[in-house]
Amino acid sequence: MLCIGLDPDFTKLPKSLQSFPPHEAILQFNLEIISATADLASAFKPNLAFYEVLGSKGWDVFQKTVEAIPANCQIIADCKRGDIGNTAEKYAETFFRHFKCDAVTVSPYMGADAVLPFLAYENTTTYVLALTSNAGAMDFEYGLIDAKPLYLHVAEKCMHWNHQSRGTCGLVVGATQGEKMMEVRKAAPSLPFLIPGVGAQGGDLGEAVAAGRALGGSVLINSSRQILYASSGNDFAEAARKEASKLHQELVNLSSS
Amino acid sequence: MLCIGLDPDFTKLPKSLQSFPPHEAILQFNLEIISATADLASAFKPNLAFYEVLGSKGWDVFQKTVEAIPANCQIIADCKRGDIGNTAEKYAETFFRHFKCDAVTVSPYMGADAVLPFLAYENTTTYVLALTSNAGAMDFEYGLIDAKPLYLHVAEKCMHWNHQSRGTCGLVVGATQGEKMMEVRKAAPSLPFLIPGVGAQGGDLGEAVAAGRALGGSVLINSSRQILYASSGNDFAEAARKEASKLHQELVNLSSS
Repeated sequence: MLCIGLDPDFTKLPKSLQSFPPHEAILQFNLEIISATADLASAFKPNLAFYEVLGSKGWDVFQKTVEAIPANCQIIADCKRGDIGNTAEKYAETFFRHFKCDAVTVSPYMGADAVLPFLAYENTTTYVLALTSNAGAMDFEYGLIDAKPLYLHVAEKCMHWNHQSRGTCGLVVGATQGEKMMEVRKAAPSLPFLIPGVGAQGGDLGEAVAAGRALGGSVLINSSRQILYASSGNDFAEAARKEASKLHQELVNLSSS
Repeated sequence: MLCIGLDPDFTKLPKSLQSFPPHEAILQFNLEIISATADLASAFKPNLAFYEVLGSKGWDVFQKTVEAIPANCQIIADCKRGDIGNTAEKYAETFFRHFKCDAVTVSPYMGADAVLPFLAYENTTTYVLALTSNAGAMDFEYGLIDAKPLYLHVAEKCMHWNHQSRGTCGLVVGATQGEKMMEVRKAAPSLPFLIPGVGAQGGDLGEAVAAGRALGGSVLINSSRQILYASSGNDFAEAARKEASKLHQELVNLSSS
């Protein structure tokens, strides 16, 4: 159930790595994190913003990072793309065909044409943003349309799209109030949840797991900063493993309770 | 008022260019299009999906394309990013600092934290998706929240964000029914509009210009495929210029009428 977010920020890396050029330092950091935690993780989720910021070199780092993730871990390209059909097709091709990722995150704002091209790929998962855990979620996601918040409309549409899909549609559901996550689970009982927001963003792990697993649902719990930056010293990989191990054990306990 | 969308699709390039590797062919195509049309265009809008699909080489092509755009033309990175604050900061840094673009497109789904980091950059424009012209727009954008469609809520929020901004907030308003575009103009009289959808997507140019310029507003009319693929032969650049020139003249006529 553990997903480790790979959001490597050069300025937060251990001092010893900061003596290298950013793209080298970040690749080295990622490789050590992956190697130290892969047996605990079900998935790794590189966040594209942290690679793009280095330009084309960053995309090479992304590629090498993806290649270093063991086959038994899902690779989730956290890119939150969303555009009209002919463009969405290119994005889907980018992440599923070129980089051979197993999953992506996608924004639903522009509707079906922005999502369906991703769902055309077999053996992939497309996590659509539904309910996010950031403060800005209140600006639009909570807006009531026919007495139902936008995020539930997204969840229902995704259930519908999933039926016509070759891949699997999933939902990004931030670790916000448990009762809201449960509403989403009821609206989309069969869709896998990707739940960020339990670490640095402060969401409750027990509530997140309960909502994700309710009604027979499946869930990935993401943690990024809490694991990556567990230590700012040269023992960063060891410290990351300790943190991942703690979270992994909590997840085991929660799922057996 | 003319914005030329650079969405170079290898499979649609002239046969003679298709004998080169995709990244070389696309760069050559872009350079010729830019050189043939730059005196007619106010802006060029590379669509990132068409570069990412080539991996890191595509990002080199994007960089070289951006560098080839003359200083008097705005460079709009059509990337439609949208993520939480710390990630949005990286995306803003990518396009405004690393690639030195003048403008970006951004998705509003996740609210303020997804948009404000872009607005922190002086002398830039951040075009936020409001009303799009694709079929999927009906899925969520038209949803009524307090008797007002979501796209108008986005327009109003953007007016508000623009006040606290160092850069300029703009709106992506697809060339859909004129009356809907006019609603957006009334909700956001001072925000620049970027209007796609007049070419291949079939929107009405006169209505788009009228709505964009109403109440003293400013507007960029984007055309991509209609110009890029005006000819599939070796005369593609010349044909693109002819098509751009025609659209430019129509815009001149409409703005003086």
